[in-house]
Amino acid sequence: MDGPDSKGLIYHVTGVLYRHGLNIIHNDEYVSPNGQFFMRTEFESAPDVTFDSAALLSELNTALPNAEGITFRLNPKRKKNIVVLVTKEHHCLGDLLIRYAFDELDADILAVVSNYNHLQPLVSKFGIPFHYVSHEGRSREEHEEAILRTLSIYEPEYLVLAKYMRVLTSDFVNRFPNRIVNIHHSFLPAFVGASPYRQAYERGVKIIGATAHFVNNDLDEGPIIAQNVKEVDHRHTASDMATEGRDVEKIVLSQALKLVFNDRVFIAGNRAIVL
Amino acid sequence: MDGPDSKGLIYHVTGVLYRHGLNIIHNDEYVSPNGQFFMRTEFESAPDVTFDSAALLSELNTALPNAEGITFRLNPKRKKNIVVLVTKEHHCLGDLLIRYAFDELDADILAVVSNYNHLQPLVSKFGIPFHYVSHEGRSREEHEEAILRTLSIYEPEYLVLAKYMRVLTSDFVNRFPNRIVNIHHSFLPAFVGASPYRQAYERGVKIIGATAHFVNNDLDEGPIIAQNVKEVDHRHTASDMATEGRDVEKIVLSQALKLVFNDRVFIAGNRAIVL
Amino acid sequence: MDGPDSKGLIYHVTGVLYRHGLNIIHNDEYVSPNGQFFMRTEFESAPDVTFDSAALLSELNTALPNAEGITFRLNPKRKKNIVVLVTKEHHCLGDLLIRYAFDELDADILAVVSNYNHLQPLVSKFGIPFHYVSHEGRSREEHEEAILRTLSIYEPEYLVLAKYMRVLTSDFVNRFPNRIVNIHHSFLPAFVGASPYRQAYERGVKIIGATAHFVNNDLDEGPIIAQNVKEVDHRHTASDMATEGRDVEKIVLSQALKLVFNDRVFIAGNRAIVL
Amino acid sequence: MDGPDSKGLIYHVTGVLYRHGLNIIHNDEYVSPNGQFFMRTEFESAPDVTFDSAALLSELNTALPNAEGITFRLNPKRKKNIVVLVTKEHHCLGDLLIRYAFDELDADILAVVSNYNHLQPLVSKFGIPFHYVSHEGRSREEHEEAILRTLSIYEPEYLVLAKYMRVLTSDFVNRFPNRIVNIHHSFLPAFVGASPYRQAYERGVKIIGATAHFVNNDLDEGPIIAQNVKEVDHRHTASDMATEGRDVEKIVLSQALKLVFNDRVFIAGNRAIVL
Repeated sequence: MDGPDSKGLIYHVTGVLYRHGLNIIHNDEYVSPNGQFFMRTEFESAPDVTFDSAALLSELNTALPNAEGITFRLNPKRKKNIVVLVTKEHHCLGDLLIRYAFDELDADILAVVSNYNHLQPLVSKFGIPFHYVSHEGRSREEHEEAILRTLSIYEPEYLVLAKYMRVLTSDFVNRFPNRIVNIHHSFLPAFVGASPYRQAYERGVKIIGATAHFVNNDLDEGPIIAQNVKEVDHRHTASDMATEGRDVEKIVLSQALKLVFNDRVFIAGNRAIVL
Repeated sequence: MDGPDSKGLIYHVTGVLYRHGLNIIHNDEYVSPNGQFFMRTEFESAPDVTFDSAALLSELNTALPNAEGITFRLNPKRKKNIVVLVTKEHHCLGDLLIRYAFDELDADILAVVSNYNHLQPLVSKFGIPFHYVSHEGRSREEHEEAILRTLSIYEPEYLVLAKYMRVLTSDFVNRFPNRIVNIHHSFLPAFVGASPYRQAYERGVKIIGATAHFVNNDLDEGPIIAQNVKEVDHRHTASDMATEGRDVEKIVLSQALKLVFNDRVFIAGNRAIVL
Repeated sequence: MDGPDSKGLIYHVTGVLYRHGLNIIHNDEYVSPNGQFFMRTEFESAPDVTFDSAALLSELNTALPNAEGITFRLNPKRKKNIVVLVTKEHHCLGDLLIRYAFDELDADILAVVSNYNHLQPLVSKFGIPFHYVSHEGRSREEHEEAILRTLSIYEPEYLVLAKYMRVLTSDFVNRFPNRIVNIHHSFLPAFVGASPYRQAYERGVKIIGATAHFVNNDLDEGPIIAQNVKEVDHRHTASDMATEGRDVEKIVLSQALKLVFNDRVFIAGNRAIVL
Repeated sequence: MDGPDSKGLIYHVTGVLYRHGLNIIHNDEYVSPNGQFFMRTEFESAPDVTFDSAALLSELNTALPNAEGITFRLNPKRKKNIVVLVTKEHHCLGDLLIRYAFDELDADILAVVSNYNHLQPLVSKFGIPFHYVSHEGRSREEHEEAILRTLSIYEPEYLVLAKYMRVLTSDFVNRFPNRIVNIHHSFLPAFVGASPYRQAYERGVKIIGATAHFVNNDLDEGPIIAQNVKEVDHRHTASDMATEGRDVEKIVLSQALKLVFNDRVFIAGNRAIVL
């Protein structure tokens, strides 16, 4: 749930759960400096109780003295349906495929879509549909329409940009609000845009990083879900940094997806709240 | 509060706070795998309300359907009174003194006690009493009695072992249950005992660390509050590791003390729960 | 090269290279506290020069005024031949296979050997021979003999224990001196032996880690090549720690293998020198 | 030494040292992608040898077949003379003073200069001259002239900006080429300019950092000497980030100064080479 903070929110909400005989396994809340309240409550019903989600949601909406602006979401624990978009690089995709193959992803990969066919052999090893949607000879809008046609087959809940190297239009992004996760190969906001490792080398940084974030209208903007870093030194060329960085990228992306797929990420303006 | 978990604990407790007109600023809870419930609730009263802590505590103790084994503690936000014990090394003490001088420690250093007089000049710069209690010519018990006599002047709530290099007896430790914080110069449980950097060098580790923990009867045991690490390589001698390690030690100790002095650390057997 | 330190070693060796018209790309040396000298020199010959490695090695052995105990090794830059041993866990193997499939491993995986057949489907996706050598109904010695028979087909330069969960006998280990790389799922020397994440949970550590090391006669001993760590907190069960730890394990193993396969690791007693 | 790379540089230089009877303790070199050669050689003379630095330097300059553009610098191991500039924040200065008081700084702090008098009491504890040079009622140029007059008393080799919060003019900076070390309270190049923690909070980053760098003409530019980072989460306000960041800042600054004062940092354009 999230909305404007007011006195008694935790009390009233946990009261509804208590009266429904539900057992809270984990509860975490956060109040932002500007007075927004966020709470994630993980609960389970007893084996002998028929859980009525509609009734619960209805009662939650009426239990608060001041519920205006409060939104409740009931998310049963289940795997999310996703489509992965890639270009040519394999490391993030490979990591996702291995996790998926061993049921560690908290998601079902319905398909992989790419503007190149380089990664088709890898994807086919895992028995997942691969769609090669080239951007050659197409305007950006035409290309995105072709991708959207492919996506319409699968109706994924989330799109994962696992090193998809094309900028998406606002029109495209707006169709998937806070449902597109991107991995950017730098410690944002350092080195936005192209060739971040080249930029990092030229700036002579001693640490490189990677950032997983939701995509919004601005390139390399959108709420940051997870970041991680790795030490480098002057001996690392831009290419060496890219090699080292790939290990950071793939782990950060997986960490972020785990949080997203377990409904642990809330959005507060341009910030991600992880509960 | 902590005690056996049961349904409705959050609801009942937040209900008491709500009826007292108290506003929850932050609430965090944890249920251990063996069914112990821990909750830390940070709240404030409205400016126009007279806060009656005795009434609140009393009502909390009667509000729960099943309060058996549940303990409530009401800790007003205030600085803790501490005494720091040291031997010869200055880095942790120096860091604490600088923080204290600029009101960053969440504690008042009532005195520094040492079995050597090496650090007396440093302590005197900051206008804090320094007690030199030598262990020379004294049995361990006699030495500890002398220290206890000094401590009795101050009646500190916490003892901070900021590189105090003598093992304490069970008798001594038992007088301050979960009130003695030690910094150990290794990433426990690696390298317990003496000369951990020498051990680390000989084992050829690539990372060194430091551990802040409560002291219990066993040497280098007791719940771990905070740990941190630093990369080293084969060029680091045992002495170089010690030098690098000092920076880790002083920061980890301060981090741990901040948690302890803000009443954020709960004890579950030999584990520290940080809420 | 390595051996006893003496004055002029760098000068004499670089002189031989200079007279052979070789260009030093990178040179790194280390003198241990007990007077052992280690030097790794990366050089290339000019395109128009015929490189005579035998002559070079011969001259190196005669160039030093005091060459007693000095060993030279000339390693052309090439991929190493390896066999990977696994049990049931897939994460390290999966990471190696993806790297291998995209030519990032600096090695050729000749085969995968396992005492279970769980990972056969994964390995077969990558077209690599998989040998299931069960330990059921065999003594430790009989099992190792069966493995050795399999290895004799491939004559690998290195064995990689990518979560191979059986202890190897001295006899086995001695056949591959400093040629077996293991990944241990703890920050050694903390938590040697079985169930390190269980141990870590019970000790309440705030950081977990993984260690890649050469295998020698003692369990979880042998020179440490690489280590890395990850923060955890009280919410992590032993199982959560294992999950988080797997990401550390697979990255640390790959980092260590990259150093080993590029001939960057020297052995000094029980310490690994990385040049 | 540094200059254009050519074949035989290590050989010729170590030959001169060898003929002078000098023993190399540590040697490290680096060739940049654009063909610049950097070498740092740490050596000692035998107790019975009179070390003639002028003769050595002269011979080094004539020993190379192609010495054009090569610069040699002979730096005896000794403490550097420094002046520290601060504004109001105490944490970096406090850390330097404690290290200095216990002879751990590899430098003598000749004086502390500040545009405020807040830190005078702290500095006076350590018996170091404190100069309050207010910028009130002065133009930037007048203020810098006043500072330069103060500095002229001490003729320091290095200026350390330990949270000196005023931008320096090019004229000022050019008087101390690669001799001014600054600590910037962000992971550069993220969040250049003022209020980096405020910027970091608003961007919702999950990691904050600090950067020690040489100062050149551009604000927050100049070769990066050392960086470090710390994880944060959504609960950290900008003020919390600043508090956490101070620990990173003071450690990074000290690490960078140790490298600089031990003559381990070379400059290659806008990159710092640490040998």
